[in-house]
Amino acid sequence: MHRAGWQNRGMHFPVHDRPQPESRVAYKLFKSLTTRWSDNDVFGHVNNVVYYHWFDTVVNTWLIENRVLSIQKPTTIGLVAETHCNFFESLSYPQDVHIGMRVAHVGTSSVRYELGVFGEAVRTAAKGHFVHVYVDPDTRRPLPLPVALIQLLETLK
Amino acid sequence: MHRAGWQNRGMHFPVHDRPQPESRVAYKLFKSLTTRWSDNDVFGHVNNVVYYHWFDTVVNTWLIENRVLSIQKPTTIGLVAETHCNFFESLSYPQDVHIGMRVAHVGTSSVRYELGVFGEAVRTAAKGHFVHVYVDPDTRRPLPLPVALIQLLETLK
Amino acid sequence: MHRAGWQNRGMHFPVHDRPQPESRVAYKLFKSLTTRWSDNDVFGHVNNVVYYHWFDTVVNTWLIENRVLSIQKPTTIGLVAETHCNFFESLSYPQDVHIGMRVAHVGTSSVRYELGVFGEAVRTAAKGHFVHVYVDPDTRRPLPLPVALIQLLETLK
Amino acid sequence: MHRAGWQNRGMHFPVHDRPQPESRVAYKLFKSLTTRWSDNDVFGHVNNVVYYHWFDTVVNTWLIENRVLSIQKPTTIGLVAETHCNFFESLSYPQDVHIGMRVAHVGTSSVRYELGVFGEAVRTAAKGHFVHVYVDPDTRRPLPLPVALIQLLETLK
Repeated sequence: MHRAGWQNRGMHFPVHDRPQPESRVAYKLFKSLTTRWSDNDVFGHVNNVVYYHWFDTVVNTWLIENRVLSIQKPTTIGLVAETHCNFFESLSYPQDVHIGMRVAHVGTSSVRYELGVFGEAVRTAAKGHFVHVYVDPDTRRPLPLPVALIQLLETLK
Repeated sequence: MHRAGWQNRGMHFPVHDRPQPESRVAYKLFKSLTTRWSDNDVFGHVNNVVYYHWFDTVVNTWLIENRVLSIQKPTTIGLVAETHCNFFESLSYPQDVHIGMRVAHVGTSSVRYELGVFGEAVRTAAKGHFVHVYVDPDTRRPLPLPVALIQLLETLK
Repeated sequence: MHRAGWQNRGMHFPVHDRPQPESRVAYKLFKSLTTRWSDNDVFGHVNNVVYYHWFDTVVNTWLIENRVLSIQKPTTIGLVAETHCNFFESLSYPQDVHIGMRVAHVGTSSVRYELGVFGEAVRTAAKGHFVHVYVDPDTRRPLPLPVALIQLLETLK
Repeated sequence: MHRAGWQNRGMHFPVHDRPQPESRVAYKLFKSLTTRWSDNDVFGHVNNVVYYHWFDTVVNTWLIENRVLSIQKPTTIGLVAETHCNFFESLSYPQDVHIGMRVAHVGTSSVRYELGVFGEAVRTAAKGHFVHVYVDPDTRRPLPLPVALIQLLETLK
């Protein structure tokens, strides 16, 4: 299922812009997740949407474990402003998956996480990003990132 | 929950590149979908991942209804190569949502669909895109788009 | 795909206990829902788990629309204590489904909802039940059903 | 969040019928699963529907790993005829869950699996069952269970 053949076949991205798979060294932190029967679609592969469930899960788990995401009475909440994923190879339940994570940008009110999905292979089956914007939970206006969060984010850059 | 305030607050996109909400006239075709209890996350709004379930649903429904997507014994299958979404406003179950769709690019082996999510408001709560690449179901190598598909896609440009 | 043949083929239920499909007149209220691409599993039919998403959705939509379910600061919350479903016929995305609902029992602290799932056919493709127990959101101990809820529930018996 | 108090508070089950939590020794085989951000509903606990995703996952993983479930060209397929779950305690993402499994009944064409969900506690947070009926993939009429499956099922009784 090698897809190198795509290069010359009419994709509308210029070659130098086309997203490329990465290896594990490109990521700072990994979390393994189990897949579910319902992850496979009718073609027998994990549906593209499920990758975003994984991204959401690993980013939020990391934030919760490091005590910078509180579900009860938060003073600042991180809204998802943008998500993106490129798919290189198929994965299938019941295999486990390994999600690599790094922080690519820390702005005044926003963070960009980059995520790589690995199955058995040495290169990403998919990679993507999430942009969180931190806002006031009532007014939804952007707020500066909390200091504890900034410090934590620096460890994944 | 107007987010115009984001413009001056340290987002890392240059202003001219930042995705903007669109109105309904920007889309060619609409499909209304019901939301589900499980779509809302702990903050009481539809989780970002659910938008991709909607995108997948409306694109594939349109392909199936127009008889260019066959689940049984297809000779060509469309793999998802890239997906993307920008989020502007929150939505919440139990409201219905209205997904607008257009075709932005038809390549030799690939199609780019653009999708807008509307709640009650006149502008998109979110917008995104899907890139499908058509491949041989066995070898997974890119194949030219089927002629019937190309003709159909032209109607949404 | 008629399954009447099951009767004589070694199912371990005694015949008189085996759940039977019902017709639309057995239900008091209907809500139509759209299906999603991800609802179909690898066999091309809606996965059994999705029916429970529909049950949850129609019961909670009805409670929210009738203002007896509040997500913000509820004084009583309904926990799900038991759910059950029997499956008679397959359904497949992209068809719409029609969920019938009735209230079968109102106890001191609990309610039993019964639900029937209809596709195109006149009889249920599946039917099931949900038992909600009302508790204090902090202590999780059972509380009497709110009066407004009891009055509402009576309309579906 | 102890729910022993339910016993005397007007649930409509007779006491002797009410499902009770079980301990780990009641199950033959365990599989640990990771939870997902989207598993928590607006009340901050894993939604009741997700338990069925876990049941489906562990039963099918076990069948696949033991080579009695084939997604490609099966000669017999197991349809889900009935599912059921009783909920005793809440669970919450990001905790892992441990699903215990046993086979309670093997009929001519059907199998009843019983499943227990464990978090940190020694007793089930929930328990339920799945009934699979084996049918011809084309006619959907019941067929005798494959011999290899019967032999495997006996190991979990």
